[in-house]
Amino acid sequence: MEYIGIDVGGTNLVAGLVDERGAILQKVSRPVDRSMSDRALCRELSLLAEEVRLAGGLSRQDVQAVGVGLPGLVNNKQGVVVTTANMPFRDTPLRELFQQEWDVPIYLGNDANCAALGEYWAGAARGCNPTVMVTLGTGIGGGMVVNGKLFTGCANSGMEVGHMVIHPGGHLCGCGYRGCWEQYGSATALIRMTRQAMEKAPDSRLWALCDGDPEKVQGRTPFQAAKEGDATASQVLEEYRQEVAIGLINLINVLQPKVICLGGGISHAEDELLLEPLRELVERGSFDKRMPTRLVRASLGNDAGVVGAALLCKAV
Amino acid sequence: MEYIGIDVGGTNLVAGLVDERGAILQKVSRPVDRSMSDRALCRELSLLAEEVRLAGGLSRQDVQAVGVGLPGLVNNKQGVVVTTANMPFRDTPLRELFQQEWDVPIYLGNDANCAALGEYWAGAARGCNPTVMVTLGTGIGGGMVVNGKLFTGCANSGMEVGHMVIHPGGHLCGCGYRGCWEQYGSATALIRMTRQAMEKAPDSRLWALCDGDPEKVQGRTPFQAAKEGDATASQVLEEYRQEVAIGLINLINVLQPKVICLGGGISHAEDELLLEPLRELVERGSFDKRMPTRLVRASLGNDAGVVGAALLCKAV
Repeated sequence: MEYIGIDVGGTNLVAGLVDERGAILQKVSRPVDRSMSDRALCRELSLLAEEVRLAGGLSRQDVQAVGVGLPGLVNNKQGVVVTTANMPFRDTPLRELFQQEWDVPIYLGNDANCAALGEYWAGAARGCNPTVMVTLGTGIGGGMVVNGKLFTGCANSGMEVGHMVIHPGGHLCGCGYRGCWEQYGSATALIRMTRQAMEKAPDSRLWALCDGDPEKVQGRTPFQAAKEGDATASQVLEEYRQEVAIGLINLINVLQPKVICLGGGISHAEDELLLEPLRELVERGSFDKRMPTRLVRASLGNDAGVVGAALLCKAV
Repeated sequence: MEYIGIDVGGTNLVAGLVDERGAILQKVSRPVDRSMSDRALCRELSLLAEEVRLAGGLSRQDVQAVGVGLPGLVNNKQGVVVTTANMPFRDTPLRELFQQEWDVPIYLGNDANCAALGEYWAGAARGCNPTVMVTLGTGIGGGMVVNGKLFTGCANSGMEVGHMVIHPGGHLCGCGYRGCWEQYGSATALIRMTRQAMEKAPDSRLWALCDGDPEKVQGRTPFQAAKEGDATASQVLEEYRQEVAIGLINLINVLQPKVICLGGGISHAEDELLLEPLRELVERGSFDKRMPTRLVRASLGNDAGVVGAALLCKAV
């Protein structure tokens, strides 16, 4: 039996044909046209699912279920996309609309949850119970799989780990509160910290790496500079890792997962600049000194969302 | 069918005969003799279980299971008490020792987890999914029930919520790290804050309430003084509630429970001095503005541990 997973991103729609162990057999994608209505987008999703089904040479009956991962709040029970941040979905009855085109079981999931599920089924967290996924990107996303099932809280917006408060009264967050983890541990935060440090360090290698334009600093810039021996960048990374570690420590002391999978752009940094020092920092704050939680890099990249979406039917 | 639950506290051993809905039918207790060996204590537990069984007029066959809640780390799978803070248990094969006296199914649980389970079965959190219990006492304890099962992490020490870091680099905690929630939100922390504020306020009503001796300040003292209109005490409580709220916000944004049950001595404070202002503070920091999490006072008091221990067999 095969499954289809669709990852709805801000830039691309990606559909994958996935087997029951989480391997991707076929994959198709197309750019998102954000001017489309939510109804038109639902039709796009059904067309894309058809496309990947045909690419795999399957009949409709061969497909067990279709799962869709979206950047926002979904209600799988009702089959509705409640809200999305940068997409036109709002109280959209996605299941119903999709099934008008193709009457197959449809499952909906949040994208961070799908990524966690994908890593649990086929990635760096395979079979780990519980699995926690943390994505260091524009913000900080999170998901958890317990006994093979997604943990989503009582109203589908649990695991908003980026909004743990780690500096009460600190930086204002997009959520309206102050001091949230994602204001200190996201890629966005690292870029801000890097720019601030550059201003005070006219001789830093960071300037050359961004062509003298702080606006061009990216998440990988301080890692690049640190590798080249730049002291300013190394200092920035040290502070950044401490902020990331605080949130990880909180997750470990509350959830004690078997594994925390780090994803997002930042997670591609060299082990010696990110994972290894993070492991040390996190161990110091872990209440359980046996430290049974492993900290690893996510291994599926963007595919995690496709795999997780495809296997939502097993996890909800 | 009936169940027996035993709450092993630092001062008393309490055993209860509990029905399958969580009602306590009989209860017996005796003081703990801490000079006893772990083996002697296990024998005490079996004698106490016999005593409450006989008080209920039951035969051994009428008792479905015995559960024991302990202040420490347990391994229910192996039937072993791994460590306790102030008791002589250490790698104690409690199940085996108990069953030498009475061969009945034995379940072991951490006391904070048992309290969560008790409130879920028969208290203020009845049927709420997930249920989170937070105990504001000497430290801050926590427990969670998801789909009727205890959530204990991968190695039985999840939900150490008192060790979320909310002030990085802050007060040194007993766990060895700095800035843990329990250094700011426990009864111990409130007493410390009260004493510090008194030193700067020689006219405060707080002095009279502790007979002029700051050592006599208790968790309820600032609540009493605030009720009598003391400005210093009101100020202390405002700061204290902000600290408590930060940890609750973090739990809400990560776990999104249906209910957070506040227990421990502090939770007995008047609603207008604790629960009501806490609800307001917590709502501001909740990422999900629908705020589906209710904040309530635990209703079973010390009985929660007995009920939860008795029904461990249903929850592990």
